[in-house]
Amino acid sequence: MESIFNKDTMPCHNQELNSGAISSAKQVRFANSSETSSDDQQHDANHGAGISNDLILEIGLQLKLLPLNDQIRELQTIIRDKTTSRGDFVFCADRLIRLVVEEGLNQLPYSECTVTTPTGHKYEGVKFEKGNCGVSIMRSGEAMEQGLRDCCRSIRIGKILIQSDEETQKAKVYYAKFPPDIFRRKVLLMYPILSTGNTVIEAVKVLIEHGVQPKHIILLSLFSTPHGAKSIIQEFPDITILTTEVHPVAPTHFGQKYFGTD
Amino acid sequence: MESIFNKDTMPCHNQELNSGAISSAKQVRFANSSETSSDDQQHDANHGAGISNDLILEIGLQLKLLPLNDQIRELQTIIRDKTTSRGDFVFCADRLIRLVVEEGLNQLPYSECTVTTPTGHKYEGVKFEKGNCGVSIMRSGEAMEQGLRDCCRSIRIGKILIQSDEETQKAKVYYAKFPPDIFRRKVLLMYPILSTGNTVIEAVKVLIEHGVQPKHIILLSLFSTPHGAKSIIQEFPDITILTTEVHPVAPTHFGQKYFGTD
Amino acid sequence: MESIFNKDTMPCHNQELNSGAISSAKQVRFANSSETSSDDQQHDANHGAGISNDLILEIGLQLKLLPLNDQIRELQTIIRDKTTSRGDFVFCADRLIRLVVEEGLNQLPYSECTVTTPTGHKYEGVKFEKGNCGVSIMRSGEAMEQGLRDCCRSIRIGKILIQSDEETQKAKVYYAKFPPDIFRRKVLLMYPILSTGNTVIEAVKVLIEHGVQPKHIILLSLFSTPHGAKSIIQEFPDITILTTEVHPVAPTHFGQKYFGTD
Amino acid sequence: MESIFNKDTMPCHNQELNSGAISSAKQVRFANSSETSSDDQQHDANHGAGISNDLILEIGLQLKLLPLNDQIRELQTIIRDKTTSRGDFVFCADRLIRLVVEEGLNQLPYSECTVTTPTGHKYEGVKFEKGNCGVSIMRSGEAMEQGLRDCCRSIRIGKILIQSDEETQKAKVYYAKFPPDIFRRKVLLMYPILSTGNTVIEAVKVLIEHGVQPKHIILLSLFSTPHGAKSIIQEFPDITILTTEVHPVAPTHFGQKYFGTD
Repeated sequence: MESIFNKDTMPCHNQELNSGAISSAKQVRFANSSETSSDDQQHDANHGAGISNDLILEIGLQLKLLPLNDQIRELQTIIRDKTTSRGDFVFCADRLIRLVVEEGLNQLPYSECTVTTPTGHKYEGVKFEKGNCGVSIMRSGEAMEQGLRDCCRSIRIGKILIQSDEETQKAKVYYAKFPPDIFRRKVLLMYPILSTGNTVIEAVKVLIEHGVQPKHIILLSLFSTPHGAKSIIQEFPDITILTTEVHPVAPTHFGQKYFGTD
Repeated sequence: MESIFNKDTMPCHNQELNSGAISSAKQVRFANSSETSSDDQQHDANHGAGISNDLILEIGLQLKLLPLNDQIRELQTIIRDKTTSRGDFVFCADRLIRLVVEEGLNQLPYSECTVTTPTGHKYEGVKFEKGNCGVSIMRSGEAMEQGLRDCCRSIRIGKILIQSDEETQKAKVYYAKFPPDIFRRKVLLMYPILSTGNTVIEAVKVLIEHGVQPKHIILLSLFSTPHGAKSIIQEFPDITILTTEVHPVAPTHFGQKYFGTD
Repeated sequence: MESIFNKDTMPCHNQELNSGAISSAKQVRFANSSETSSDDQQHDANHGAGISNDLILEIGLQLKLLPLNDQIRELQTIIRDKTTSRGDFVFCADRLIRLVVEEGLNQLPYSECTVTTPTGHKYEGVKFEKGNCGVSIMRSGEAMEQGLRDCCRSIRIGKILIQSDEETQKAKVYYAKFPPDIFRRKVLLMYPILSTGNTVIEAVKVLIEHGVQPKHIILLSLFSTPHGAKSIIQEFPDITILTTEVHPVAPTHFGQKYFGTD
Repeated sequence: MESIFNKDTMPCHNQELNSGAISSAKQVRFANSSETSSDDQQHDANHGAGISNDLILEIGLQLKLLPLNDQIRELQTIIRDKTTSRGDFVFCADRLIRLVVEEGLNQLPYSECTVTTPTGHKYEGVKFEKGNCGVSIMRSGEAMEQGLRDCCRSIRIGKILIQSDEETQKAKVYYAKFPPDIFRRKVLLMYPILSTGNTVIEAVKVLIEHGVQPKHIILLSLFSTPHGAKSIIQEFPDITILTTEVHPVAPTHFGQKYFGTD
């Protein structure tokens, strides 16, 4: 995967993310894109359901989309469809999560190595460097823990709980548990739906307080609004965001449907 | 994913597969690529460890490679490394298999559909058409059954056993069990290592005898020799082959190491 | 599984839990059982590493142990062994969790039903009644969520976070998210290590506040101290506790090792 | 688990298997047990749907039943019900298989060992001895491979294919692949439905030809007819058979429904 901007210099195997491509793609995918929710319109009043050139310029290199294909579109469709059963929802969410996790692992640093095959050939391959961990943001981020474990058997997984303080209404960290040496690690931060971006921003602040460098944070998500991605990148320009779709309407029912709670 | 030939007409998000790219990539990855095994040299004497333009021309559009990235390279490296433990081998093979299966599903036909989200929006997505099935070629192909099931909970899975006849030394079908209406279905044919291609060719013949059309067969594999892919496509030009690496040295120890048998 | 007291009236397929049996069993299993930790000795000073008759009388029918066998003993051994790798620890913990979950499901109400087999026979079987859910107590209880999902594909899973208040040092509920109609449901409450029992007691209070009846709560755990089980049952005599081993020394490193955090 | 005969000498935590218990249990569970299929009546004409004392005497200590409980009964019910969807069938079969596999592992030899806990205590536990392997009998036995792998990550798994010879109609071995040193190993032989027992008998012969001792064979199955179990034990009195239900009507549609083939 490459960044959204270097399509001139590298072979582009990404979902194209310039304004025109996204706009038309989105207008195809959301039939009534002009009737986006009022919440979305607040953020995106100037450019309808699409993504403006300005936004692209603002988000820049740090937002990476999984290469779009029919199979990912099918998973997105099933997750968005309100008639999907909880069993099917969880199954498809887990599949999409695994694909994002695999791509997230691909963002981690690796080094060249030479191994010997059973037939005695030398094979020049790669190996990932140690020193990574996962951190899930409660509660919906927890849905991504098993997917991470499916790909990294014994990766350490920390956790953050952020809620609004009852009195001040400000976001407050209620719980944070990390590997003790997290400041030395690359962090796969997990949160499936980026809507306003506020929760993620608070979580990143906590990580930074624990000594993590923003450039070592890879945010794994499934869906993002343009506003959410933009807010996060504006606050932390060095973070990497991975997602499968950018659209004003985010499936905010995700956590509730995944876990069956309100 | 696109075919290897249309890079001029479509944005290329594939591992490049023209002669130069593959040759150099392979020469990087196999240190001693000039010392390929004698078996490989029989097939590839004219073009060393790389893939000649002629071969590309012969294989054509039907051979599709997963987009190569570090994470896939790491899995390939671990699978090729003779010092890998069986536990790690199985874990990494299962991961790579799942990625190939996801891409294989992506090759299946789908149709547009419109769903309603929980917030009342119309979303224009896709759904896969019914009428697919898996068929594994014993024994190594069986290693791919669980990966298929992980992505398609209740897909029907048939099976073929082909062995050399003790007397005639000719490949002979000893066992074949398919869904009864397989002639109506798309078939995901599973066999992880394409070496000579002979076993797959026999398996395809059996499928055709059961009424399956070659254009409805998608061969899921992990590794292929140039010779193997070429032989299959020459015999059945309409089949689609999916793999993660084309190289003269195939990890033929795959089945033995996966199952722990000789 | 039956309760520990009715062995005269029903065929006993449980690990025997009268004082003598447990004492000797435990003395076999903990070599230095006289050197239990000071924390344990506080609770169990009068009866060494075993379980006194009085304790049994106090705990009574509501404490149920999985039938002990070699395979469960092996899993317990690997979980207790400080030299176990994190990968093996997680794998074995997941296996033991699944066995406890299967037994927990067995405690749920069911009704008789008659089904027809493919050959036309009538078969009188059972089916579980709907209206169950899981609730995990953070953080170690979360390790049991996937095991529950492995057995109940789409069960709803709530969550509770309880921590000591920084100022008052009293246990305080920081987070609670349940299915909206939890008051109508049977609850599989998940917490792997019962040490003092305090966290579970707070969690049960929260459930009761949400209208759950104590008799509808089945506490799934892996290991319990005698003190922990006793405290919980004294507070809530109608709750059912399921565990695999009762011993003064609890593997309190469980959550930390499972998730790789401190 | 104990054998069916020593209930006087050991605490019985098994499904009781004396004639009366089984007869009544079965008559409860199969409503029309007098109308068993003609095939069953051939084998069981003298004792209806139940199991006669004579049969018990003949089968003896080597037949072991999983302790019956509601949750296992539910799985059996769903598997027998002709209206069960393939997705649910596979899910429930996998759960029941895992329980049989866990019990099968419990039959393997182990040795005492002492480990040290993270808090410095000595814990006297057990560890299984190395030198086991799995062998599945095609095709339905293959459904049990993943369950074995779920409990034993890297166990070696061999395979046997037995079919009727087209000309002679005699059972013939078409394929057999084992770990090279199988003669030194304990073998978990997998075949879910024991109907006549003939296929298993042929498979055991093949194992013996490869040097396996019958007393080292543990047959893992889900359902058995009385006739099937009896035939196998009569031929090989030292084998151990593990199953969850003995009844004249065997769910012979198992493999077909699990794999979706005819």
